[in-house]
Amino acid sequence: MNRHLISAGDLAKDDALLILDTAEELASVSERSIKKLPTLRGRTVVNLFFEDSTRTRISFEAAAKRLSADVINFSAKGSSVSKGESLKDTALTLEAMGADAVVIRHGSSGAPHRLATWVHGSVVNAGDGTHEHPTQALLDAFSMRRRLGGLEGRKVTIVGDVLHSRVARSNVLLLHTLGAEVTLVAPPTLLPVSVGSWPCEVSYDLDAVLPKSDVVMMLRVQKERMNAAYFPSEREYSRRYGLDRDRFAKMPDDAIVMHPGPMNRGMEIAAEVADSARSTIVEQVANGVTIRMAVLYLLLGGESA
Amino acid sequence: MNRHLISAGDLAKDDALLILDTAEELASVSERSIKKLPTLRGRTVVNLFFEDSTRTRISFEAAAKRLSADVINFSAKGSSVSKGESLKDTALTLEAMGADAVVIRHGSSGAPHRLATWVHGSVVNAGDGTHEHPTQALLDAFSMRRRLGGLEGRKVTIVGDVLHSRVARSNVLLLHTLGAEVTLVAPPTLLPVSVGSWPCEVSYDLDAVLPKSDVVMMLRVQKERMNAAYFPSEREYSRRYGLDRDRFAKMPDDAIVMHPGPMNRGMEIAAEVADSARSTIVEQVANGVTIRMAVLYLLLGGESA
Amino acid sequence: MNRHLISAGDLAKDDALLILDTAEELASVSERSIKKLPTLRGRTVVNLFFEDSTRTRISFEAAAKRLSADVINFSAKGSSVSKGESLKDTALTLEAMGADAVVIRHGSSGAPHRLATWVHGSVVNAGDGTHEHPTQALLDAFSMRRRLGGLEGRKVTIVGDVLHSRVARSNVLLLHTLGAEVTLVAPPTLLPVSVGSWPCEVSYDLDAVLPKSDVVMMLRVQKERMNAAYFPSEREYSRRYGLDRDRFAKMPDDAIVMHPGPMNRGMEIAAEVADSARSTIVEQVANGVTIRMAVLYLLLGGESA
Repeated sequence: MNRHLISAGDLAKDDALLILDTAEELASVSERSIKKLPTLRGRTVVNLFFEDSTRTRISFEAAAKRLSADVINFSAKGSSVSKGESLKDTALTLEAMGADAVVIRHGSSGAPHRLATWVHGSVVNAGDGTHEHPTQALLDAFSMRRRLGGLEGRKVTIVGDVLHSRVARSNVLLLHTLGAEVTLVAPPTLLPVSVGSWPCEVSYDLDAVLPKSDVVMMLRVQKERMNAAYFPSEREYSRRYGLDRDRFAKMPDDAIVMHPGPMNRGMEIAAEVADSARSTIVEQVANGVTIRMAVLYLLLGGESA
Repeated sequence: MNRHLISAGDLAKDDALLILDTAEELASVSERSIKKLPTLRGRTVVNLFFEDSTRTRISFEAAAKRLSADVINFSAKGSSVSKGESLKDTALTLEAMGADAVVIRHGSSGAPHRLATWVHGSVVNAGDGTHEHPTQALLDAFSMRRRLGGLEGRKVTIVGDVLHSRVARSNVLLLHTLGAEVTLVAPPTLLPVSVGSWPCEVSYDLDAVLPKSDVVMMLRVQKERMNAAYFPSEREYSRRYGLDRDRFAKMPDDAIVMHPGPMNRGMEIAAEVADSARSTIVEQVANGVTIRMAVLYLLLGGESA
Repeated sequence: MNRHLISAGDLAKDDALLILDTAEELASVSERSIKKLPTLRGRTVVNLFFEDSTRTRISFEAAAKRLSADVINFSAKGSSVSKGESLKDTALTLEAMGADAVVIRHGSSGAPHRLATWVHGSVVNAGDGTHEHPTQALLDAFSMRRRLGGLEGRKVTIVGDVLHSRVARSNVLLLHTLGAEVTLVAPPTLLPVSVGSWPCEVSYDLDAVLPKSDVVMMLRVQKERMNAAYFPSEREYSRRYGLDRDRFAKMPDDAIVMHPGPMNRGMEIAAEVADSARSTIVEQVANGVTIRMAVLYLLLGGESA
């Protein structure tokens, strides 16, 4: 496997399956109440977050600690980085301090890729601009596989603001690699112009797609974007793209509902749908820790401590 | 014992004594220079703080780490919680990430109680609105017992802004359970209307109460409240309710002085009183870590790791 | 050795050499891929930072964790300290919570010294006002010794805003103790009035000094100071005091370039100079962790855990 995890699009099928299978093993260890493994004792994982994301940061922190790594949190806000220090100098500094892996969240697409050209340790992309969020796609695929048994030929519908969603992009790329068939459903103004080259279908009619879906993944509406000219009104959005009780009833009986969180209950998803037994939303969070353990284990575990 | 610690008022006498006795054992272990116990290895304690409180957060963090637990700090400010995520979704997220205990500080009375209805792990109330702060009451009771030998029949006077004080409320409830007799002394405008139903006496005359007190506990004045119409002026407050040298001289020779910190020296308490040998203020801090170790130990220690 | 590390000026030559030699041993252990030592298991190191300094905080955090200590980060901003709690009460609180060492960064010169009079544990000065930053001087001396073989008689030139630089002051004092000869180069308005009593030379002519230097240490320009009346313009500063390619060529072939970071590339130092093989800038960061391990080891390692 590569030394870094920058993009779900970079993962060969074998690599992706290795991560999912490793996560499966770690989950079974955890279910036997073994909460902490010594694998990464003496290793240091730095969470380098240029954007606030408490959930993702905590998920990586929990994953690293369960593997006995030391974790150092570096919120770049208010640090010398914001005083004009270059990303390169920050990277070299963190590496010199002994970081074996840097988990980076950055507002600019491509920042993790650049970081990886400067350091000898591993770089894990925890979300860069509108580009990618590969561990989210991996945890989603892992959650689907655990519920559905496999991904080959499965029909996955992703609904919402695809334009601004690194989650959607990473999911499309990974799911395609793993043999699933993805359909994006979004208002035309919330699709990227490049979507024609993505390995997926596009539809504007959610109600037509739902009955043929094994998985329906609702994207989070960023409320701060809702006043933009290209954005439908809140009411319009919810009416046309929200997964309410009636739409939920149109899905096959064994289809599942996903959401990367945090949810706007009553907006893109109804509370009773979010809380139904066919929702994987809470599992996704738990699986997020497991997948991140698998990624850190595979990237760092090979070296002797 | 209950799975959670939400309210000092909920604690049966046996439960409270079990916590105090466990803390006594932990203190004696610590005095033998054994600084770290393996009890909670592999367990994760999340500090979920919706209000800033560095002292309380650090005290819980130190307690959990001495028991070898992993600690994750979640400051809810600026997180998705402040973007409208519900407390319920936050709770489910933290639990899914593997939190065995959530220590919560929240501005709304009752938030820890609601949290406890959603999660399977343990919830510890680290202060909710004007409601309760049970570990503060426990550490105060522990500090009194260590100094005075026992609490049965002891006369405890609590002085200051009872209206806004979860510390006062938790102390009244716990001390009553443990057999002490509490008198509240406060300006009439700084007493809650419900105080008539509390298991304690009320007085407006500090000088009359001091000579009969085994313990005098001064509450912190929140300076940001001092301009409110119901609040006495700074000078007036200090003159009528401050524990200065003259008032200190009216206390019995073996009576002790307490304060939950941080103090306003020269306002509610004179510096020389705060620093006297009969002040327990520094001990209270050390006892705070010990009590929180006891609470985490009893709530989490039962399960196998 | 003293129980605290407050000032490079306090270090006797033997103490300074003991720290450097201990760091050398720790570096050799680390080079044998032993990343974590059990020396400080059960000890608690508190980072008490009244000023933001992510780099220094992380360096101490990494050092303490590699020695297996528990680390608690206390950012004093927004805490009760900023609500008027005295430094003394904060110190007593941290000690009561079990801090074995307090690493303090404070805006007031002398704050670490005062702290040390109140606590029984160790105090490490991580930068106080314009006074001292002793671990920076130690890591600089360590970096020079590793590159040059020894410090006795070596000529070290320190260039920049000496007036506001605790780094310069600590370096002058320590390097003098270790037998090196220091020359300060700065605009007259950026030298302290007391510099006449410092054990070093002063020059206003960088080009004259460079050919005789074994080490050239560039200080960081604080851009927020550049509009002050006493400060040269950005262009003027860079032209007269910046280490560009031409000036770099005037240095002896085996002389090295240092910078405490973070750099303003193109201002006080040219990018190609910073990145040259004779620059120790990245090594300084790595050596910073090693020196801080040595300091914590020597201050805390003596007691039994």
